[in-house]
Amino acid sequence: MTLERRLERQVAFLLELDKAKHVLRRNHLVDGSRRENDAEHMWHLAMMAIVLEEHATEPVDLGRVLRMVLLHDVVEIDAGDTFVYDERARAAAQERERSAAERIFGLLPPDQAVELRALWQEFEEGASPESRFAAALDRLHSVLLIHADEGRTWADHGVTGGQVLARNAPIGLGAPALWELAQRLISDALARGYLPSG
Amino acid sequence: MTLERRLERQVAFLLELDKAKHVLRRNHLVDGSRRENDAEHMWHLAMMAIVLEEHATEPVDLGRVLRMVLLHDVVEIDAGDTFVYDERARAAAQERERSAAERIFGLLPPDQAVELRALWQEFEEGASPESRFAAALDRLHSVLLIHADEGRTWADHGVTGGQVLARNAPIGLGAPALWELAQRLISDALARGYLPSG
Repeated sequence: MTLERRLERQVAFLLELDKAKHVLRRNHLVDGSRRENDAEHMWHLAMMAIVLEEHATEPVDLGRVLRMVLLHDVVEIDAGDTFVYDERARAAAQERERSAAERIFGLLPPDQAVELRALWQEFEEGASPESRFAAALDRLHSVLLIHADEGRTWADHGVTGGQVLARNAPIGLGAPALWELAQRLISDALARGYLPSG
Repeated sequence: MTLERRLERQVAFLLELDKAKHVLRRNHLVDGSRRENDAEHMWHLAMMAIVLEEHATEPVDLGRVLRMVLLHDVVEIDAGDTFVYDERARAAAQERERSAAERIFGLLPPDQAVELRALWQEFEEGASPESRFAAALDRLHSVLLIHADEGRTWADHGVTGGQVLARNAPIGLGAPALWELAQRLISDALARGYLPSG
């Protein structure tokens, strides 16, 4: 592949990524003004990785964590956002996300397609220190933003305190101090009535 | 500083960063539907750094480039976006951006405030291979998105082909192949009438 053809494919991939700015998540911005999109979410997660690295359970390669969080949701350009508390929808989304990874990373030159698809797969599998830390940040991010917005996303979708605790317990694998923080936020949400117990 | 107090400051900083999602830039998304915000821009730049690293003039530490592009515009939370073709406004913005860096990075524990403020300063000064590559990506990103949107931002603000060429020539310092690409896009924009010559 010529250098020019490589660059052409890289640019096609980067222009395609623009669509992540249109994929809306269930949570709102901190001020509650509108829903967050995937591009904003992935940026915010990357900043969390930079600032919270010291809380990772095991030492992590920060560059690898950054690449992983920056691309982990691009498959939603095709597959759409799946609400994490909807178990049936999540199972159905897996095949759509695999096809999306094939198509979207496949826009890149082959070596980069393989490399970025593997990073996405690593995030999904959660078997490395970097992917466990990245997954902890991903969960904590939702708790932080939904708590700041007085629990609106949980209320809108009828999510209970028990569900939020069960969903977020894996934060403890990637970053114990962040799991303590998440538990404090969830307790506070219960105490304030942002979140029904049960 | 206790671990708990460190985490409290880290979270305060991260929640403050949410405001970057409200800072609108002059350019639109690729599909022209609305203006882009700083969080989206910083995410997209980070993805460009991952994919285009091989085009950097000198070998770069990708993790450092990523941290730099991910935080380079957070000062605009206080200082606002300054249109790059408005020279007078850019000079006036410098002092506002310095104060913004002081306040925003100052929310972090002191060691991290120093570290992130230094990365921001390094980007601004453009004296390292990483900052020259980051600056090249920052410029190329605008050209890519404005070209995709048929030059609307240039037309709206009366920017000429000569101004766009002069503004973007420094891409050549950080990444010669990307400067060639930018020149092709600018020539195409001139040929299609997206951009007045002069």
